[in-house]
Amino acid sequence: MASTNPQESVRDHSPLPKLLPTVRLVVTTSAGLNQIDLPECRRRGIAVANVANVYSADVADLAVGLLIDVLRKISASNSYVKQGNWPTRGDYPLGSKFSFVNFVYCWEESGLELLDWEISGMKLLKGLKPLVAVSLITPGRKSHMSRTLSMKICELAANCDALIICCGLTDQTHHLINKEVLSALGKKGVIVNIGRGPIIDEKEMVRCLMEGEIAGAGLDVFENEPDVAKDFFALDNVVLSPHCAVFTPESMKDLSELVVGNLVAFFSNKPLLSEYVDE
Amino acid sequence: MASTNPQESVRDHSPLPKLLPTVRLVVTTSAGLNQIDLPECRRRGIAVANVANVYSADVADLAVGLLIDVLRKISASNSYVKQGNWPTRGDYPLGSKFSFVNFVYCWEESGLELLDWEISGMKLLKGLKPLVAVSLITPGRKSHMSRTLSMKICELAANCDALIICCGLTDQTHHLINKEVLSALGKKGVIVNIGRGPIIDEKEMVRCLMEGEIAGAGLDVFENEPDVAKDFFALDNVVLSPHCAVFTPESMKDLSELVVGNLVAFFSNKPLLSEYVDE
Repeated sequence: MASTNPQESVRDHSPLPKLLPTVRLVVTTSAGLNQIDLPECRRRGIAVANVANVYSADVADLAVGLLIDVLRKISASNSYVKQGNWPTRGDYPLGSKFSFVNFVYCWEESGLELLDWEISGMKLLKGLKPLVAVSLITPGRKSHMSRTLSMKICELAANCDALIICCGLTDQTHHLINKEVLSALGKKGVIVNIGRGPIIDEKEMVRCLMEGEIAGAGLDVFENEPDVAKDFFALDNVVLSPHCAVFTPESMKDLSELVVGNLVAFFSNKPLLSEYVDE
Repeated sequence: MASTNPQESVRDHSPLPKLLPTVRLVVTTSAGLNQIDLPECRRRGIAVANVANVYSADVADLAVGLLIDVLRKISASNSYVKQGNWPTRGDYPLGSKFSFVNFVYCWEESGLELLDWEISGMKLLKGLKPLVAVSLITPGRKSHMSRTLSMKICELAANCDALIICCGLTDQTHHLINKEVLSALGKKGVIVNIGRGPIIDEKEMVRCLMEGEIAGAGLDVFENEPDVAKDFFALDNVVLSPHCAVFTPESMKDLSELVVGNLVAFFSNKPLLSEYVDE
């Protein structure tokens, strides 16, 4: 069984494993596992293979790109120039210095963990002195961390200028970025989401963006895809990308090879190339 | 005398030094020196102070931002989503992997030299394995390099996927990026210009972009500012920024301090903080 469509709620697991009583393998082409009924797979001994780190570099690159774009207003000034405003309306308003952004890596034994996202983009971030807060959470693990996590994210947000969300969607991370976290991030704070839309309380984020309670957002994922909330459309401090962080020809090629490799391994009774082990 | 407006031709030096026979100091707030009649200043012993490395981080950050933007189509997909096309027209076309871009640093004894642009953004580039060609040329120096430079740039362009232009505008670099260089860069090549517009033969670049002879461009500077060639406006593979690479509040503050510091030093008969020494 190949799973390709990441549902945007962790609560709506695909019913497929239940409908296919003889299935023995699930190969997903998505980075997230929220669309797979992992407990059912575990119960029935169905093997699950994920994308390993095939998407990692692309996702990180997009995260960095979105962050620079929001801080330096690249997309907004591109529209400004292309609409012919420069000669008539003069210089474009100042952006913020990227290199001043406050950087915090955040993971810990109890559940924040450097996932697949060990990547070129993150290495690139590490190359800079101060920078960007990154929250990294392994999906489907350490379910006891729920409330403490939310509190820690608040602390993290209060101490950084930019928060990059690149964790998986689980019951624990659903609306992890809520009113309190956004408020802690503050008026100069920027949020980038390359994880899953429902990790952020989107209505609250829209309100914060419209009222200047946070400075800006770069979003690749949304609560309701592809029907993005129209409130975003008029906001110059928001850069939107249609859930395409992983879509480069190079990654698609690597993905095909991995999927085929997993199928070949499975039917040859060899270990899967990228088995997901639910701890 | 404070010089603030960078003229976009190296041939039109400001006549001010000639009009102000008693001037003893020129403090420029521009990174480029092409607007200053350096031979006249040298002849009359007029001191020249430049911006040192005040703008370096901002310029480098924008260069990286423009490059990721072009490769990953961030501005174009932002417009796509904001125009409501995602639900009706489906996924946005694939971008190119940033991390695959071929990286060449290029400088040499004879004139390509790591200038002020020794920077966070460049350090950031260094953090990645392969990447981007960067040409770095000290303005106003080594005038004998003209023809060899053009040939070397051709070679460089043929061996890289992206060419970041961050050199000064001089007689030697005017239209340095011409038909031959663009053709050497090729169909998959991307050009980023954060130096000065006339370093690129803009008409030729527009033709290459329209006919797919190069893949894309991220441009902060243009041959005729602010009247940007309208041919650019309809091109999705081009990201335009209104000559604002250095405009962040943080850099403006650093700049004010440097300008005041230079004036104080000059009138106290102390060494200038950032004297330009014409070798």
